[in-house]
Amino acid sequence: MNISTHSTKSPFSNYLFMIDLSLPKKGEVLGYLDAKGPKPTREATAVVFYGAQGKIKEFVVGPLPNPTYIRDVTLGKYNMEIPLTARPVHKSEAIFLTTFISNVLKPLSKLMDESFGPGSASNVSYTEAMPSGLKSGDRQSWVGLTRNVEGFYIHHIGFELLINHQSTDFLQWHVVKLIYNGQYFDSVEELKQQYEAGSLRKIVYKPQPNYASLKPKQRPTGIGPQQYYAQGKRFSIYNNHVVYMGWSFAFGLSPLSGMRIFDVRFRGERIIYELSIQEAMSVYGSTTPNLMLTKYLDASLGIGRFAYELVKGVDCPYSATYIDTFHYLDTELPRRLKNSICIFEHDSGRPLRRHFSEIGDHSYGGLSNSALVFRTISAIANYDYIWDFIFYQSGSVEAKVHATGYIAASFNVNGSFPYGHQVAENIIGNIHTHFINFKVDMDVLGVKNVFQTKDMEFVNMSLPWMPKHHAMIPHLVEKQVKTEQEAALRYDAKTPRYLHIASNQTNRWGHQRSYRLQVTSFTGDHLPESQPEEKAMSWARYKVAITKHKDTEQTSGSLYNQFNIWTPAVYFSKYIEDNENIENEDLVAWVTTGFLHIPHAEDIPNTVTVGNGGGVILRPHNYFDEDPSIHSPDGVYIRPGSEQSCDDNRMACLAQQTCTPVLEPFTYQGFRFHLGQNQGD
Amino acid sequence: MNISTHSTKSPFSNYLFMIDLSLPKKGEVLGYLDAKGPKPTREATAVVFYGAQGKIKEFVVGPLPNPTYIRDVTLGKYNMEIPLTARPVHKSEAIFLTTFISNVLKPLSKLMDESFGPGSASNVSYTEAMPSGLKSGDRQSWVGLTRNVEGFYIHHIGFELLINHQSTDFLQWHVVKLIYNGQYFDSVEELKQQYEAGSLRKIVYKPQPNYASLKPKQRPTGIGPQQYYAQGKRFSIYNNHVVYMGWSFAFGLSPLSGMRIFDVRFRGERIIYELSIQEAMSVYGSTTPNLMLTKYLDASLGIGRFAYELVKGVDCPYSATYIDTFHYLDTELPRRLKNSICIFEHDSGRPLRRHFSEIGDHSYGGLSNSALVFRTISAIANYDYIWDFIFYQSGSVEAKVHATGYIAASFNVNGSFPYGHQVAENIIGNIHTHFINFKVDMDVLGVKNVFQTKDMEFVNMSLPWMPKHHAMIPHLVEKQVKTEQEAALRYDAKTPRYLHIASNQTNRWGHQRSYRLQVTSFTGDHLPESQPEEKAMSWARYKVAITKHKDTEQTSGSLYNQFNIWTPAVYFSKYIEDNENIENEDLVAWVTTGFLHIPHAEDIPNTVTVGNGGGVILRPHNYFDEDPSIHSPDGVYIRPGSEQSCDDNRMACLAQQTCTPVLEPFTYQGFRFHLGQNQGD
Repeated sequence: MNISTHSTKSPFSNYLFMIDLSLPKKGEVLGYLDAKGPKPTREATAVVFYGAQGKIKEFVVGPLPNPTYIRDVTLGKYNMEIPLTARPVHKSEAIFLTTFISNVLKPLSKLMDESFGPGSASNVSYTEAMPSGLKSGDRQSWVGLTRNVEGFYIHHIGFELLINHQSTDFLQWHVVKLIYNGQYFDSVEELKQQYEAGSLRKIVYKPQPNYASLKPKQRPTGIGPQQYYAQGKRFSIYNNHVVYMGWSFAFGLSPLSGMRIFDVRFRGERIIYELSIQEAMSVYGSTTPNLMLTKYLDASLGIGRFAYELVKGVDCPYSATYIDTFHYLDTELPRRLKNSICIFEHDSGRPLRRHFSEIGDHSYGGLSNSALVFRTISAIANYDYIWDFIFYQSGSVEAKVHATGYIAASFNVNGSFPYGHQVAENIIGNIHTHFINFKVDMDVLGVKNVFQTKDMEFVNMSLPWMPKHHAMIPHLVEKQVKTEQEAALRYDAKTPRYLHIASNQTNRWGHQRSYRLQVTSFTGDHLPESQPEEKAMSWARYKVAITKHKDTEQTSGSLYNQFNIWTPAVYFSKYIEDNENIENEDLVAWVTTGFLHIPHAEDIPNTVTVGNGGGVILRPHNYFDEDPSIHSPDGVYIRPGSEQSCDDNRMACLAQQTCTPVLEPFTYQGFRFHLGQNQGD
Repeated sequence: MNISTHSTKSPFSNYLFMIDLSLPKKGEVLGYLDAKGPKPTREATAVVFYGAQGKIKEFVVGPLPNPTYIRDVTLGKYNMEIPLTARPVHKSEAIFLTTFISNVLKPLSKLMDESFGPGSASNVSYTEAMPSGLKSGDRQSWVGLTRNVEGFYIHHIGFELLINHQSTDFLQWHVVKLIYNGQYFDSVEELKQQYEAGSLRKIVYKPQPNYASLKPKQRPTGIGPQQYYAQGKRFSIYNNHVVYMGWSFAFGLSPLSGMRIFDVRFRGERIIYELSIQEAMSVYGSTTPNLMLTKYLDASLGIGRFAYELVKGVDCPYSATYIDTFHYLDTELPRRLKNSICIFEHDSGRPLRRHFSEIGDHSYGGLSNSALVFRTISAIANYDYIWDFIFYQSGSVEAKVHATGYIAASFNVNGSFPYGHQVAENIIGNIHTHFINFKVDMDVLGVKNVFQTKDMEFVNMSLPWMPKHHAMIPHLVEKQVKTEQEAALRYDAKTPRYLHIASNQTNRWGHQRSYRLQVTSFTGDHLPESQPEEKAMSWARYKVAITKHKDTEQTSGSLYNQFNIWTPAVYFSKYIEDNENIENEDLVAWVTTGFLHIPHAEDIPNTVTVGNGGGVILRPHNYFDEDPSIHSPDGVYIRPGSEQSCDDNRMACLAQQTCTPVLEPFTYQGFRFHLGQNQGD
């Protein structure tokens, strides 16, 4: 097929960019799982960049592991051809960009030496604006030069280049504009002349310590509290299946969209077919061009491929279970990401429930909130997203995200201030958003569900025992939503406080068995819809949108949405445009969470997770007949006289039974590049 | 002074209901702490119910511990007389009520036996509607009879009595109305006649197991993960002072409003003068009268007095430090609440910050999120509020609340459904709100602060390098709020995403040093302002309200707001009415959080904490020059080649260094009634 797997050898020839698992159709999966149907064929999707033809194609290859067929699915999947300019900057293009920049800077060595220190012309790093241009087909990027040090993201030096790298002939690449210390130039020559003529405002080099380094200022002496499994591990993992306290699920990691779980069951009943990250988006403001138009769409860059090794005792509790993953994305051989998933049971330090009674009856009953956490952390260039799926003993599942890592930044010039705060020497932390989209494909007692809302309203009522007296009494207001457009809850609209995916089956008390979606979010407006880039992030128009499940509406982002943001391969709002009926249908909830980030000095060196997150809790609401946690083995119950008894209170015996935590030795191989399943360890 | 300390002996004589610490004036405290002024006089407030005079008086007594003066402060404090009907139902009144009910039921023994089981006339419990009536001076309460079993709150039997207990002569008490199985009656006789004549819809007794019991269904076998201090305790407590990782604060527990901390400092600088719970409010809806008008104001009942003993390993981690408190509220001798505060360091199981770098530089830096938690749990009749103040290494303080315990419920009758869901046999879980008010008296570098808001707005801009092209670019919009009314952010108004208490001093980068208030809340409308009861909960009109500090505006609730809800002793919105200037003033933020609770089957037996909470994070925003956690002793840093080195990574040595957790024996004395400082332990 004339395809290379080595991008660096012939960068604009035909490059096998990605191989990834194709998700089988939901109907086939359920047929297999629930109705003894055949096992769905295992297939792979292969993405090829055709450099000469200027386009990208996607193929489905199957059956795995010994494929016999290959199908071009590009048009069927996206309803459009994918131009080559829609591709992310892959390894070889990045290398060429670095070389190109270095060649551009060579004639500027005097400026570089005087402005940024001796030898800086050949020792810079850079951040890249995204998208690369203003319209489909553009591929010209503002590149912001930085010091080449740890945490270079917050080391912008005040020199940016607009590079046109659209051509597949890299000799055609050229500098379109430059900005130096807030002053624009049309060419390197113009900048050089004006610099040498002294007719511009110069930056004068001043060495400084690296405020971006994460190296502790003093040798660390501290060890925080540690957790141990007093009973050993109470969950088990078999291949990609996890079982814990009535919960079971299968997990995976998409190199593009990140972690996802399937077939989530509680006490044997499927509640969720798919829970997955879809997209992580950031929109920036700046007066400097590198960040002025930047809108990151991380599912195009790869949320899962950047799930690097987790550090024991920091990224997850030391005693967590760590699992390797593999991907084939812009790599010559499959890459192993060692210990990139961690699974652990965690005590939140707060009861799941408790009650103490001194009135009438004297008793105490409670349960500590131990829950299973499934985690990856994606270090997508500057920032790190911590992704958690949490399984509670009360039948709730939570999807949570926290942001940390480095902010994106710019050099402080005149006019910087309406776009952020200064956070370090000459460095502006630029205002931006973090919007996250989760896909929640719930199946509440089968695939046929309805979307319900519940809220409270005050109604003026006459008091039955004193009819002349009126009072405003809270009423429960329930509503079943009929169509996709009605169920697309816009970010700026008042939203009912309770959102439910419900079955038409009822619980013991006659109420529709449902799961409630409770979203924690600090978002607001994402980008005016007038902007051509908005379509690629149109899921962010909605706090929650409910669609009828379709195998052809699998994701809210795509590999191509970042670099062809103006004509996105996946335009989420189109899913809703046909306004289908959603009553008694297979429903998918697309949940948006996130926050506005106005950087401040405390974002240096890294943003902290406290307060910088969001998520959604999926919680049973009349799904059961009572709280399932009453069957937890961890229940504690005390009555007067039984305070020392261990019968209903294992805590009373903990002091006698505690075993010593036995810890595995510390290992970390995150800097080793793991290729192939059988290489490394 | 003709005051009794024994309420039960002469219930409507003059009763010393409460003795509590009087908070000294802020100016005097700061004079003492910061300016070597004299130590403020320690004084007590004594609350006396004058049964014969029909009023309540508050006295300040001092100096402690050997008082020489006593001042009546009632009028000065509340600007009104406090009528006796404003008092909570205290111990003796409750005993009389129980006796009264028992006398009422005696002639109904046949109805009781047949409807609710043999002997039930003399074996019922009850819940009490609040407020007690429809206007100031009323004291007639709908009492909902329940089975007398564990968790009686969700055992309503369908029989409620409206009792007038206004008179101080309890022989004057009388039944005003009754409701039996949804049918109203004017007298016991009428009900009895109709019952015996068979001219009403009867309830037929059917025994059933106690679904409300918290006793584990099977003998518990589980022990969840446990935490231990690998380095021993890293905080210290001296009297009521706590020191942890740069933090220090003093703590206390008000028997009425609950836990509170003062003089919170980070690295020696005071950030918060007072952080305290103020009020916990619930508004219910029902078709049955007991809950139809119920609006609980817990600060009148006592949030702190109900902070019972915490159970090790459930309410707090087993290894936490437990502290006793004392109160004198409706008690004959000071009551000791053993182990009612817990303090512990907790690992959230998630990094506070981390970054992994594979681009350019190869490095990893991170810090686990170990934080100090200060906790009490108030079991206020049916529900239990878990209160946390959390101190993070990044300089943030969080105030959090979670609700658990029993829901309030009603018997299922015709017309119940618009008010909730059925959750157990004949039991409706009634729709209600949980609104919580915190007082946050921040002092950012002194008392003179301003209130600032920050948000993002899109502005249409011409691109400097391509002026004909326009784009909507995010801008930072900052505003300084001038007056109290402008700073009262209504629950239904769009609110700027960032709220700051700022100093006029600047950090190293020239920005005003500030703390941001980040509220997590799921509230909505609390009660229409047309309702006469609304004034007593008017703080709930605002997500956040900023007022100028006054010693006379100390709380948002009061002991009297519940029972004189129509003419509340503290009407919060009055604090704002004078619309004072708040620029460069001593500012107090009143923060509302909470959620709407539509009960569901999973609230049986107890509501779980997952998703049922809210709070506020106070986080530095340009207060420091960089994230203070970079100085944490817990920092971890790894570079290629240093993966096994413990120099910058104590986790690498954890496996060798771990010590065995040594646990204290389990103790619990929550059922013992602790009187006096030297009695019991």
